[in-house]
Amino acid sequence: MLHISALEKLVHELSRLPGIGPKTAQRLAYFVLRSQNEYPERLSEALLRVRAEVHDCPRCFNYTDSDFCKYCEDVHRADESICVVEEPSDIMRIESSGAFRGRYHVLHGAISPLEGIGPQDLKIQELLQRVNAGLAGDSPVIKEIILALDADLEGDTTILYIAKHLQGKGVKLSRIAHGVPIGSDIDFVDDRTMGRALENRVEL
Amino acid sequence: MLHISALEKLVHELSRLPGIGPKTAQRLAYFVLRSQNEYPERLSEALLRVRAEVHDCPRCFNYTDSDFCKYCEDVHRADESICVVEEPSDIMRIESSGAFRGRYHVLHGAISPLEGIGPQDLKIQELLQRVNAGLAGDSPVIKEIILALDADLEGDTTILYIAKHLQGKGVKLSRIAHGVPIGSDIDFVDDRTMGRALENRVEL
Repeated sequence: MLHISALEKLVHELSRLPGIGPKTAQRLAYFVLRSQNEYPERLSEALLRVRAEVHDCPRCFNYTDSDFCKYCEDVHRADESICVVEEPSDIMRIESSGAFRGRYHVLHGAISPLEGIGPQDLKIQELLQRVNAGLAGDSPVIKEIILALDADLEGDTTILYIAKHLQGKGVKLSRIAHGVPIGSDIDFVDDRTMGRALENRVEL
Repeated sequence: MLHISALEKLVHELSRLPGIGPKTAQRLAYFVLRSQNEYPERLSEALLRVRAEVHDCPRCFNYTDSDFCKYCEDVHRADESICVVEEPSDIMRIESSGAFRGRYHVLHGAISPLEGIGPQDLKIQELLQRVNAGLAGDSPVIKEIILALDADLEGDTTILYIAKHLQGKGVKLSRIAHGVPIGSDIDFVDDRTMGRALENRVEL
């Protein structure tokens, strides 16, 4: 359509980004063409650099550019609880609440038979090994595993799978609460959320 | 916030793209990190290639990767009318209507005193030279200049400026019509558009 192969190629590559359709990709490509101050070169370098420097933390599988991620390296965090999340970006959501000061474990996804993602495609085996190692010896280090997965079918399936493999090992298993969001009007809450909120009501 | 400098740099560069805020940039950066099939390398290469290969057509200032753009090179197009647009992307909008088969001239913007963009920052001088050259000799080649600029203050200012410099040279000057969009309900048309639609009514 544009009849300029380099421009068409850039539009094609940009439209593979999530949430970027062909129209937006075209707008972005024109912006890149018009831009000053070596912008395409700097974006290009940033893309290559992120791939070269950023890798998974070998312990928790969060992204890092050093040996271990900053949450694994932080000596002021408690080793006794591990918060399990689907993606590295979820960690920031939990950190900014300030309500958790333990360690993390990133699964890099959730079990989804529909998308062909099984337990072997995730960092679940690594989690089980990590928990087993933390429970070994006379004084177990790990006391609680908090599952902070998405409140959808995939998240629920993954929680069931992990629970099946960790139950009876003497480690406390919990999942984050579902209920009415703070500040929201009860009128606008859906049935399932309200059902959970009633079921998991907290005694005063 | 991410504490990984390569990732922060990529988020920073991505958030400079139009319509991409910091949150979206972060989502895109995580997508790049997770992506397979050498995606960052391919996007990076596409960015550099577009900058290296695509340049302005020396006649009409549309983008091209050869000596002249495809509209300037097309021998089946009429030389007698030139359609003046603000951006190369506007050409496609006009082409897809199928209503114009002449030549183009891209100004690369519009006069905007607020943003400090004057006539000298645009390809207006080049347009005037092109028109003067087309009018020279016994049989003038150029007969009509159609101004297809945005229907805003900057577009109107630019039209006034160009008209001032081209009036009295024996070339027909026109601007695209403003009015009620096809398929739209008259109820939803704003006052200024309706004013123009009435003013420029067409005799049946």
